[in-house]
Amino acid sequence: MSITIKDIAKLAGVSHATVSRALNDSPLISDITKSKIKKIAKDNNYIPNYSAKSLKLDKSYNIGVFLSAFEGTSASFFYSYIKGINKLMKEGNYNLVVKAIDDLEGNYSMVNTKHYDGILVISQKKEDDVFISYIGSLNIPVVILNRKVNIKGTTCVFSDDRDGAYQAVNFLINQGHRKIGLIKGKEGFLNSKERLAGYKLAMDKSGISIDNNYITSGKFDVISGYNGMNKILENNKELPTAMFCSNDEMAFGAIRAITEKGLRVPEDISVVGFDDIDMCKYITPSLSTVRREITKVAYSGTKILFNMLDNKNSNDVSFTKIECKLKVRQSIYKLD
Amino acid sequence: MSITIKDIAKLAGVSHATVSRALNDSPLISDITKSKIKKIAKDNNYIPNYSAKSLKLDKSYNIGVFLSAFEGTSASFFYSYIKGINKLMKEGNYNLVVKAIDDLEGNYSMVNTKHYDGILVISQKKEDDVFISYIGSLNIPVVILNRKVNIKGTTCVFSDDRDGAYQAVNFLINQGHRKIGLIKGKEGFLNSKERLAGYKLAMDKSGISIDNNYITSGKFDVISGYNGMNKILENNKELPTAMFCSNDEMAFGAIRAITEKGLRVPEDISVVGFDDIDMCKYITPSLSTVRREITKVAYSGTKILFNMLDNKNSNDVSFTKIECKLKVRQSIYKLD
Repeated sequence: MSITIKDIAKLAGVSHATVSRALNDSPLISDITKSKIKKIAKDNNYIPNYSAKSLKLDKSYNIGVFLSAFEGTSASFFYSYIKGINKLMKEGNYNLVVKAIDDLEGNYSMVNTKHYDGILVISQKKEDDVFISYIGSLNIPVVILNRKVNIKGTTCVFSDDRDGAYQAVNFLINQGHRKIGLIKGKEGFLNSKERLAGYKLAMDKSGISIDNNYITSGKFDVISGYNGMNKILENNKELPTAMFCSNDEMAFGAIRAITEKGLRVPEDISVVGFDDIDMCKYITPSLSTVRREITKVAYSGTKILFNMLDNKNSNDVSFTKIECKLKVRQSIYKLD
Repeated sequence: MSITIKDIAKLAGVSHATVSRALNDSPLISDITKSKIKKIAKDNNYIPNYSAKSLKLDKSYNIGVFLSAFEGTSASFFYSYIKGINKLMKEGNYNLVVKAIDDLEGNYSMVNTKHYDGILVISQKKEDDVFISYIGSLNIPVVILNRKVNIKGTTCVFSDDRDGAYQAVNFLINQGHRKIGLIKGKEGFLNSKERLAGYKLAMDKSGISIDNNYITSGKFDVISGYNGMNKILENNKELPTAMFCSNDEMAFGAIRAITEKGLRVPEDISVVGFDDIDMCKYITPSLSTVRREITKVAYSGTKILFNMLDNKNSNDVSFTKIECKLKVRQSIYKLD
């Protein structure tokens, strides 16, 4: 058992209230009394009761991180987000409470104003909007990461995936490619839609008609890239000369499928990924990809949340877009 | 503002205490009164104050997950652990509080009995022992994941890395390899030491002397595998015929270094990794590796912690070892 405020009061010969005020640095208590009481607390290993303290200060010291698509994302996605958020946690002496559930909707009881000082939602799907609207109504400071949400007053930080995909496909076109295939991301995810939109935009702008036989669905994991690529290889007499894959993991799967068929990357089929995870530089051929700064998205969003908590209002900025950048490596072949 | 117990009392025409008892299903209150009060609470969107509630029940509903080596580990390591732990969180209605800091020592103020019902430490280094001893002394239920700790009364769940490494190197020997190199894991990590021990054990048992020129240090990331392999390739006239890499990421880096030199995997040099991350099956050649069940370690450890919280004492089992298993794929060549 640790010592209580009552015990300290007895040892110091003062009232319970005086001890409480002294430990909370109240101006009502003299410096001499304060240091005397703090010394007793320290010598007796007094542990403040944070639950009680937070009731009083109306602070929980918890930052909630809600993820709607934990199982459906890659390890690097999750790790990069937590890394970016975690960098700031110590600064504010906050606890990072991770709520990773596959379906945010219907989980309203998890969240209330008393339990969280602020909330970050790493959002992927439009279905999250009901949950986001709900927590918005609770007057808890909230920042949405990873997705632009069209709910008034909602602050969002996300990467410009559409432009990133546009850069990738446009580069392939500039290298002489016309038959460019696509492995789409997981259905219903905004990231998937935006990358598809960037692909279409680049094709349209160059007046290249899209061949739907070159487009297949994926789920952001290696195996779906492998299966998707195999489908394209098996269903087409005339193969695409380049593939844009909606993330790196699927690009690795696609490369595996291509080489298993005895074809070469990039000489027969060029491959481009998305995200720029560590591995891209080190596989053979090294993977050209779109660098997405997830850690930066997470860090910026957390910074904005902390400003809200400090009442440095940042409501004038409703969304922040972080740029993506194409990294050209060995997996792209220039056609004559 | 949400409605308070006081407001409900006024609306119901009963005392504050009656409302509180009714909402907490006290046997002192009749079922009729209970249902009347609960209806008022529901109709007016009453949100229970969990901080107040936890004070009373002496529960915080927080499970702390402390990591000492967050930056020094791979994304898949972190993701797999959180995945395994998270699976059980909903069951107990617990919050998962992640404390990812590079140095646990000196962070004692973070942890106290009032804030956590139970703690999981994902430990890598012996240096964590001071912290582990400290929290052990607080009478909070604690389970250590990933590392066997020699502190009396400490419950640990970890994978049998030594045996896993032994299996890998022994298999290489059975395939005719004698000149077997090693890329070690990050210095100071128990995982690194155990894998080194397994390598040595297999070599010793077969009476093969270890050539220190074939051993290099790594840091568990792709680039250190790449650099380490390059060092071995450049410093030896006679090259090893096989490499055991202490994790998959470093194996990918090693393969890149080998192929860049114009050598082939596995014909010139066989490569084996450790962990069995998703990518292993899909790179070319597919990577032989030791499967480590991180999610299982995490899940089992959390289960044990929950049993402790329920006072189903499991103190008789002080450690649980989870088996590793070699997965043989294309990256191993059989020597004549």
